[in-house]
Formats: sequence, C-alpha cells, structure tokens
Amino acid sequence: MTTPESLATAALMRAVDVGDRRMGELVQRHGPVETLALITGSAEAAPDRLRAWKARLAESDPEEDLEAGAQMGARLVIPGTPEWPTQLDDLGPSRPLGLWVHGSADLRHSCLRSAAIVGARAATPYGAHVAAEFGVALSEEGWTTVSGGAYGIDGAAHRGALADTSPTIAVLACGVDIAYPGGHQELFTAIREQGAIVSECPPGVHPTRARFLIRNRLIAALSRGTLVVEAALRSGALNTAGHALTLRRHVAALPGPVTSEMSAGCHRLLREGKAVCVTRAEELIELVGFMGDDLAAVERGPVVARDELDEVTRRVLDAVPARGGSGPASIAVAAGVELTSALSCLGRLAAAGFVDRVPRGWRLRRATRG
Amino acid sequence: MTTPESLATAALMRAVDVGDRRMGELVQRHGPVETLALITGSAEAAPDRLRAWKARLAESDPEEDLEAGAQMGARLVIPGTPEWPTQLDDLGPSRPLGLWVHGSADLRHSCLRSAAIVGARAATPYGAHVAAEFGVALSEEGWTTVSGGAYGIDGAAHRGALADTSPTIAVLACGVDIAYPGGHQELFTAIREQGAIVSECPPGVHPTRARFLIRNRLIAALSRGTLVVEAALRSGALNTAGHALTLRRHVAALPGPVTSEMSAGCHRLLREGKAVCVTRAEELIELVGFMGDDLAAVERGPVVARDELDEVTRRVLDAVPARGGSGPASIAVAAGVELTSALSCLGRLAAAGFVDRVPRGWRLRRATRG
Repeated sequence: MTTPESLATAALMRAVDVGDRRMGELVQRHGPVETLALITGSAEAAPDRLRAWKARLAESDPEEDLEAGAQMGARLVIPGTPEWPTQLDDLGPSRPLGLWVHGSADLRHSCLRSAAIVGARAATPYGAHVAAEFGVALSEEGWTTVSGGAYGIDGAAHRGALADTSPTIAVLACGVDIAYPGGHQELFTAIREQGAIVSECPPGVHPTRARFLIRNRLIAALSRGTLVVEAALRSGALNTAGHALTLRRHVAALPGPVTSEMSAGCHRLLREGKAVCVTRAEELIELVGFMGDDLAAVERGPVVARDELDEVTRRVLDAVPARGGSGPASIAVAAGVELTSALSCLGRLAAAGFVDRVPRGWRLRRATRG
Repeated sequence: MTTPESLATAALMRAVDVGDRRMGELVQRHGPVETLALITGSAEAAPDRLRAWKARLAESDPEEDLEAGAQMGARLVIPGTPEWPTQLDDLGPSRPLGLWVHGSADLRHSCLRSAAIVGARAATPYGAHVAAEFGVALSEEGWTTVSGGAYGIDGAAHRGALADTSPTIAVLACGVDIAYPGGHQELFTAIREQGAIVSECPPGVHPTRARFLIRNRLIAALSRGTLVVEAALRSGALNTAGHALTLRRHVAALPGPVTSEMSAGCHRLLREGKAVCVTRAEELIELVGFMGDDLAAVERGPVVARDELDEVTRRVLDAVPARGGSGPASIAVAAGVELTSALSCLGRLAAAGFVDRVPRGWRLRRATRG
C-alpha cells in the first residue's frame, strides 16, 4: 500500500548509502515526507551534502521502486507501520530508513522471539553441522533464526530453521531482488515461503564489503541475541557480535576445537568475557529468552492478551486457521465481517503476534495455537 | 634427615586417613611432637576418636616408614622445613600432615611457578594431544606441570612436560611406592628423574575413590592455577577445579567440540563463569602468572634477590653448574667452603628457587641461568 511516507522513504533510500547517520537524524526528527521536501526545496547554495542528496533524488524514481517491489512480491516496511520492528530504534541515527521485505512472515512479529546465528563462510563440517542443529531446534521451539544468507554457517542455520515450521529471516547486503550469493537462490525461495528476505538496500543494489559490515548491525539489532558459531579472528561474524554488544543484546559463542582456526574468534569472545559459552539450542534460548526486559521493543510493542482484543478482532482471529492458510476474503466471510474490516484486524493481529502471513493467506502463530 | 618432628609426623600419618581435619587442627595448634604425646598419653576414658588414633599409633612403626622411604629414595617433607610448599597452608585444617616426595625436584620451589593440568582418564585423542602440547610449552617456559599421574589427560600432560627440562609433579592417591596406575611405571621413573612423585599417603597405602577426591585438593593447592583439558559432566577433574575455586586459585577450561561429551564439563565451567577460556599455553601462563599476589606463599616465602645472599651462599651458588649437575662435595670444593656449609647453603638456595636437585646432584634453575 503506497502512502506519502512510503513514497518519500523509497526516494530517500536512493539519496544516500545505507547507514547514513545524518539522513537518519533528519528523518527521525522531521519524518520522511518533510525531509524529502527539505532536500528537494534546498537552495543552490546549500551545503555539499544536501546538494549531493538532491542530485541523487533527481535521478530516483520511487514509484518505480515501489512498483518493482510489488511486482516481485516485496514490500517496503517503514517506521510507524505495524510491521516495523521497533527494536531497530535502538540503532539511533543509523536506524535504516526502511526495509524491503520479501516473504510471507510478518517481520516485526517474527523477530520478537528471534536469535541470530552467524559465522564464517568458510565453515568447517563441524560448524555447519552445529549451526544447522541450532536452526532446527530454534524452529522447533517457535524461535526465528536470523542470519545473513551467506554460504557456510549462515546457510546452514537457515536450512536448519526451514526443517521445522518457524520463520527464518535472511538480512542481505544487497537489494532483495539481487539475492546474493547466487548459489543460494533455492534457499532464498524457501526462506521467502517460510520467512523473509530483508534488506535496507533498494532494488538492484549490489553488495559491497562496506554494505556487509553495515548490514551486520541489522542482524544484531533485529534479534534478541547473537550466537557466533565459527569465526576466524578477523571474521565478519565478530563484527556482528560487536554490534550486538553495543546494542546490549545477548552475545553467545559456540566453542570448538582449539586446533581449529575457525573457532579462534569464538574462543576470544569467551576469553574476553564478551560472550556466554553456549553448546545447545536450549542454552541459547535460555539466554535470549530469560530477560524479558532485554529488548525494550518487547515492552513497547502492541502485544496484548487474547481476551483484551475487541469483539470484531476476536471473531477475525477465530476465523484464522491453525494450519495451511486462508485468504482475507474467506476469513471475512467466516468471521461475518466486511473485507476491509477483516484486513485491518489481520494487520493488527499480525503486529500483535497472533497470526502470520503465509503463501496461502493467513494462519495462526504457533504460540497461539492449541 | 630424621628429626623428632618428622618421626612424630610419620607416626601421625599412620593414625588417620588422609585429609582428617581434626588431626590437622591439633597438629597446627600443638605441632606433631606434642600432638603425638597428647594422643599416646590419653587416658582409657578418652573420646572414641582419640582411642582409635591411639590404637592405630600402637601398630605404626614410623622409624620403619622413614627408613623404607629413605631406601627407595623418598623423603618426608613436613611443614616448617625448607622444602615445604607453604601455599598448602591455604588448606587450613585439611592441610596434609606431611608429604612423601620421591624425585629430584625441590617440591617447594617447583610449585612456585606451576600450573595443574587435569582431565579425564578416558581422554579423546584431541584432549591428549592438547594436554601434551600444554605440558611441553609450560616446561619450555620454565613452568612446572602438576597433575595426578593418571591415564589420559594427566599422563599426556606429564609426558609433554618431560619433553623439555622443567620439573613435573605427580600427586598420587596412594603411597609413592605403590605408584598407581601400573601402566605408568616408566612414566613415573622419568618423573622422579626430572620432577617428583608426591603423596600424603604413607608407603604401602593403596588408592581408593575417597583418596582420589581428597588428593585432588593437593593438586589444586600446590599450583597457581588449574586447567581442565577434558572432563565429562561427572569427572573428577571438575572436583579439582572446585577445590581450586575454593582456594581462590585460577581456574581455566579448554574448549572442545560441543559434540564431545569429554568437553561438556569444560564448557559448563565456562558457561557458569567459573573458568577462563584458555586455548594456548601462553594464555594459561598469562592467567596464572599475572597476579603475583595470587598465592600468599609467594609473598611469605624466602625468595630473595641474588645480591641479597650472604658471601658464602653466593660462592656456593656460583659453583653450581647451569647444565648437568654437580654433587655437594664438588660444589664445596669449587666454592672453597666446608661440605656441611655447602649442604646447608644448597638447601637454602633450593628453597629460594636458585638451584634444583637433579639426578647428578645440583644445578641452576632455568630462571637464574644466563
């Protein structure tokens, strides 16, 4: 659904590179629409930065971006809308302007109970095996696995999560249409069906080393904690762990043989007391699930008890199936409400964590079933 | 050298089982000679405990114990003598009454710079490999490896230490003449030549499960810190780590694959924040060597600078070779002092950490060479 805010955000996302703190500050102070007007209305004598933004805006085509996204099935999620993961506000001025989301899962709700599993691309069979086991176990327990979609540990964690029914979120350092790396196209298709591909890069943007490092803050910020499964001493996974520490998220490290360089980064985190030693998924869940007040977003969020829902919303909720999925029209009929009313109820229910968007429509979240 | 104190201690060591806190308190308050007199002079109506001790004393033959020890080459080291490791005083009433020492190394000095390496008997090839590497590296750096002489991790650590020139100390749960386990006789012979076999059990006493657990406190107390290399969740090595924690010694754990049960105990120590993650010997040395005030014994001990030695002692020190070894007679001649004077100087020099007893006599400690 195109709004003035989403259109302005799509434009601003073309004006700057990802993680631009000055733009972030402006948008957080004035909102995207006013910020856009400020830039486009700036005088010829404006500071270089404004003029550069203005020049890039002149070449942008936000309507086309939104339409291209819609055609591939992706949506632009922006602050202030129900699907926005408010824990990203912890990033301050480096909060992304918006996120392109391509997949069936509700991003905000998926990340309420989520853990990031990250690690080396050049993973050992040991690391890949354990990462997959953690993904499976998190998924079985209704936890979302967040990772970066890369080869090695990331891919193993996503695949493990897909073996059960919980969502998995891949945060990319390129447009959701680029979906790098190429060898993971089938994996990304499966992630879209059961989770989501997420990026702050507009469509068509290719990954760079800088974008990978900036992307890492999103993996750390979206999840309640980050587990580093394997990391050499200069691994990007340690960068993600560093972001998690800065954001006061939980950080865990998986030990491995001291004879393996791929575990050296994990052991350093443990030695320096920056990470908790975690050997099983239960331990990770205990860590990230223990302190309910760890992520401010959990408290700030609109999560409400079922019996606090209003009459119409509850009827809509009762009409959502536990398995498979139903379209909004069928749900409206079953609930005996108007389609527009059903749609707005479903949006609120998704934000509150009761239902999920799935390929076949909507269905109940695991935690609210049975 | 038999003294009234050593004779009384040898007797008292026959009167109680190892680790008897009531006996320990008595001896620490009254000394061994007076304690022995108290017990042997106690009336028929004395408490059961005293009568039981008295009965066992009646069957003991301390002269024979001391002579049997001397014949095999072992000595009884007791509190208050130069070779006594005063850090054992941290054990309070469970401080051993005395220690049988069989080997060339000066026990007190060897343990001033020592680390315990302990772990499972059922070690994996990974654990045994790493334990041996730590033993080698400690030995190369002039650190003494303390362990329990068992199969698995203990044996690998001792063997590693023997690959270089520093002492290694095996603390047994049986008489030094029993030298359990039987398959380690050759290893024990090598340890005696370059280090020492140590036990608080009198000659002829066989190991029991209880004696192993009580023995563990000595491994922890003698060394500046304990590294657990591999340990299942119910391993005796965790008992040693527990003693080290109680004694406020450093505790380190070596990580391993989370898929290995033999590393589960190490990972639990790390998870619970009871141990520091250590992956290389340098890290272990950094840990145990960092805080000079960690072992009170280091401060209390008679360690003095070379130029604080008196004239005669310095001449004796100058006559001690850096390699090989010289007998006291040759040293006395080279230093131009009487043999008895040389002997007492050598005793003081050993206690102060300047020289070591070796199979061929005496030689300089590594740290004082060059």
